[in-house]
Amino acid sequence: MHNITQWNLTDIPVSEINSRRDKVMRKITSQGCKAMVCFSSGALLYLTGGALIPTERPMALILKESGEAALLVPRLELEHAWEVAKNVGRIEYYPEYPTEKHPMMYLAELLESMGLAHDTVAADSDGYGAYWGYRGPKLSSLCTDMDLRLFPTLVEELKIIKSPFDQMVIRESARWGNLAHALLQEYTKAGLKELDVVNRASNEATQVMLKTLGPDFKPAGGANAHAGYRGQIGPNSFLPHALTTNATFRKGDTLVTGASAALLGYNSELERVMFVGEPSKEQAKFYSHALEIQKVAYETIRPGIPCSDVDKAVLRYYKENGLMEYWRHHTGHSLGFAGHELPFFDRSDDTVIEPGMVFSVEPGLYVKGLGGFRLSDTVLVTETGIEKITYYPTEIQQVICDL
Amino acid sequence: MHNITQWNLTDIPVSEINSRRDKVMRKITSQGCKAMVCFSSGALLYLTGGALIPTERPMALILKESGEAALLVPRLELEHAWEVAKNVGRIEYYPEYPTEKHPMMYLAELLESMGLAHDTVAADSDGYGAYWGYRGPKLSSLCTDMDLRLFPTLVEELKIIKSPFDQMVIRESARWGNLAHALLQEYTKAGLKELDVVNRASNEATQVMLKTLGPDFKPAGGANAHAGYRGQIGPNSFLPHALTTNATFRKGDTLVTGASAALLGYNSELERVMFVGEPSKEQAKFYSHALEIQKVAYETIRPGIPCSDVDKAVLRYYKENGLMEYWRHHTGHSLGFAGHELPFFDRSDDTVIEPGMVFSVEPGLYVKGLGGFRLSDTVLVTETGIEKITYYPTEIQQVICDL
Repeated sequence: MHNITQWNLTDIPVSEINSRRDKVMRKITSQGCKAMVCFSSGALLYLTGGALIPTERPMALILKESGEAALLVPRLELEHAWEVAKNVGRIEYYPEYPTEKHPMMYLAELLESMGLAHDTVAADSDGYGAYWGYRGPKLSSLCTDMDLRLFPTLVEELKIIKSPFDQMVIRESARWGNLAHALLQEYTKAGLKELDVVNRASNEATQVMLKTLGPDFKPAGGANAHAGYRGQIGPNSFLPHALTTNATFRKGDTLVTGASAALLGYNSELERVMFVGEPSKEQAKFYSHALEIQKVAYETIRPGIPCSDVDKAVLRYYKENGLMEYWRHHTGHSLGFAGHELPFFDRSDDTVIEPGMVFSVEPGLYVKGLGGFRLSDTVLVTETGIEKITYYPTEIQQVICDL
Repeated sequence: MHNITQWNLTDIPVSEINSRRDKVMRKITSQGCKAMVCFSSGALLYLTGGALIPTERPMALILKESGEAALLVPRLELEHAWEVAKNVGRIEYYPEYPTEKHPMMYLAELLESMGLAHDTVAADSDGYGAYWGYRGPKLSSLCTDMDLRLFPTLVEELKIIKSPFDQMVIRESARWGNLAHALLQEYTKAGLKELDVVNRASNEATQVMLKTLGPDFKPAGGANAHAGYRGQIGPNSFLPHALTTNATFRKGDTLVTGASAALLGYNSELERVMFVGEPSKEQAKFYSHALEIQKVAYETIRPGIPCSDVDKAVLRYYKENGLMEYWRHHTGHSLGFAGHELPFFDRSDDTVIEPGMVFSVEPGLYVKGLGGFRLSDTVLVTETGIEKITYYPTEIQQVICDL
């Protein structure tokens, strides 16, 4: 036998989709269910590879024990769904929402035709969520003969341990987030405006990323590299969740950044503190604490201990160094698909850390008048410790922007 | 008396916030409730003017019959909430999510301290929604003595009739969406790439918009002008909800655009068909139909008739002209705050049209191999008919991009 394979990251492999579905099936069949119905667009992307824009028009994926998969979509997504949903043998549609016959009636009929109307069936929720003006009946009120069991967190829980493919795309995301960040730093100068710099850096990084990934790359679920400030400029960076004001950079500003790249439905997280011109002694002091606290977390994270241990070690540093007045939030969160995922590096999240988990490590200090001091890096838990996935420089002299 | 007032659009006036709250109160007190609890970030923005980023950390607004307003936020949003939430006399916080004590326990205590624990209380949902890894108990399970009544659609229903201030900001949004669109058309040329053009046009329009609105402008809930293609380029514009692929524009392409500006939590909708170079006879034929169908809708919309009448008139045009194979979706939707809102111009939405409603009018034709033909305009229903809010040119010679 002689196989020629090609390494690439242009699309989510069908084998990956199938392995995700197998995990769903193992879980729900062990609870006596014959099929799973998913309404959330995140679950549809995760389990079919197809990104379809959620609107007032409900969509649903049905996965059967037999391996059969069916989608219900509105008419306007029919051709698109056939194009992007992997390993889905049947796609039914309804004309519009609302119509004479409610879309949920079409779903009930589809379940009936798949022989599921009198079975025990799992679902991520009892109907499509209220979104953009959607109103509709519960699935359980239409399929009265079906024994519907809700597993609202099943898909989110499957995402906790990242597969080798997941890990590979998250690393790739970090690579392009890093480029966007490097351009952000290069273009940031006193006198320029936030959005000019952010848009220039993000667009250039996106163009290079798409060129590098090549013409076969499928931008399912968005595809762009981004680096920005979200308003965290100068004293306003004191707010951990500030919003963009298109401020002008000024000498002496403390800047808090954020960078990532959306790829095949994945993301990563990179955040840095930067300074416009040489930092003051006060800025350098808090920067050095921010770096030290991150190190405390790195040295603590390992498989087998609860997530809470990481946050507790970090909190000890704050307390021992008299920094609690600058504390605002826990050490980090899981990520990879959504912006934040569970579990959390939080003093009361006792989930045991396992290899394959991916976390942000981002303790922060917020100093009124001076700004925010938060570096965030994405780390993968390994068998023996962690692999740092993001790799942007952290030395203070390396994060100074030109005047 | 001699008042000097200043016309501007820099912020949502407190009088507007108060008038929204009055409507909430009239509704829920008429149902015997003493207060309203809102969890959705859209409701928080609408009822306080403050945009706070939703995460795994729940937030809640409590409005009391007496006029009292209180917010519960996580520690990291405390200063930000005081800065942006209008006419809120009390802001309580919890340290983090998760913590030893669940954030919902803090909410239960806040309700108790406001004297509401034994009252009839309205809420937009029975707890914070599952989001970014949040898990939590229902409010009703914690406040067992409270008679909790759910009004999940109340705030959305209040948004249906736009106030004079709402209308003014939606017009302003249309103005900047128009500029972004004009730049999009100017910069689109055969051989260039989608995202280069989109990012250039959108960034320039945003910069001009922010400069024009001046330094006092509060970018609550985002502030940017945007015009783009979302992948609707050439044959791919056949998909009504295509996604960006960063395609290269080619001679002969049919392009479907979308433009808006986010301002104070409002938006508008402008979409056009454009052509790269002179359109073919086939392209011109479908373009002319798209224009005609929009006119049918304009001539039908008026207060006093059901929304369904508009869609039925439009569907008649498709049928009489043998165009049903190109039909994919209803005529339009309400908008102004969210991207889509209820009611809909749909053949089975019998909501009676009233002055103050704002709709998109966007019947479309989707021709395999050739592309999509959909113009969308935002219209305000007046006492006697409609006011077209978007105003981008529609003559075919005016929507041709250079080769």
